[in-house]
Amino acid sequence: MNKLNPWYVTGLTEGEGSFCVSFNLKRRLTTGIETRPSFSLTLNRRDLNLLKDIRAFFGCGAIRFSRSDRTYKYESRSIKDIRKRIIPHFMKFPLRGEKLKDFWNFRKICRMISANQHLSVKFLPEIIKLAYEMNPSGKRKYSKEYLLRVLDEVKG
Amino acid sequence: MNKLNPWYVTGLTEGEGSFCVSFNLKRRLTTGIETRPSFSLTLNRRDLNLLKDIRAFFGCGAIRFSRSDRTYKYESRSIKDIRKRIIPHFMKFPLRGEKLKDFWNFRKICRMISANQHLSVKFLPEIIKLAYEMNPSGKRKYSKEYLLRVLDEVKG
Repeated sequence: MNKLNPWYVTGLTEGEGSFCVSFNLKRRLTTGIETRPSFSLTLNRRDLNLLKDIRAFFGCGAIRFSRSDRTYKYESRSIKDIRKRIIPHFMKFPLRGEKLKDFWNFRKICRMISANQHLSVKFLPEIIKLAYEMNPSGKRKYSKEYLLRVLDEVKG
Repeated sequence: MNKLNPWYVTGLTEGEGSFCVSFNLKRRLTTGIETRPSFSLTLNRRDLNLLKDIRAFFGCGAIRFSRSDRTYKYESRSIKDIRKRIIPHFMKFPLRGEKLKDFWNFRKICRMISANQHLSVKFLPEIIKLAYEMNPSGKRKYSKEYLLRVLDEVKG
């Protein structure tokens, strides 16, 4: 297994990768909302071996099979891995398309998470705003407005 | 506009590129069938500038807008450009996933076209066979069996 060239990984990510921050309702949290960052790369099932090379390249994350669309997805969700391994790669070998804008928001949000700002009703609205500027074509469980209303109630 | 890194171009192609050989019925040809090779790369409309960088990188081909799926497609169809500019790139900076198999068939077919074998009823069946092994998920105007029947009639 030859190591992948880092620019190749960036090129593949430009097409098939995704920087995403999703939110779940969690009553036990002070904010009522859980923040989950993830970097993922989805390929056709015939390319499972390539995803294994990607996993080896980043040295973190996991691969899962999605039955619904018969694809494999490499995903890194740990904020520690994302900040230590994923973000530095894309700083050194930057994206060239519009996905770069997603990356900048993702990076900002991950910095805020590392500073525990996602646990504060003061900073979470900013995180939600940045997250909803990303992946314009993606589907969301909750609307931005709904999440901000949840936060208002918690503050209430 | 900074030049794209060649490995980045290969990585992007792994996800969004396509090597394809299509066929059309043309009565004026001896074989009755026209052979059309093409290398293409399709991106969301927000990434038109990136496609322009791709065009500049290869120094050939054209960009077109597809209304049906609201994407832009870079495409190189000239056999001369494909053999001089596209194929050498992917020989030097090879694909890593299953698309590599498509590339090998594409390369074989382009060599045969350069030797005018696509104009001969003797060699065209081999070209059709190689072409239909590629892009298993792609849609075809004619089935392989239909094209071979057309050839049989011409030979008849």
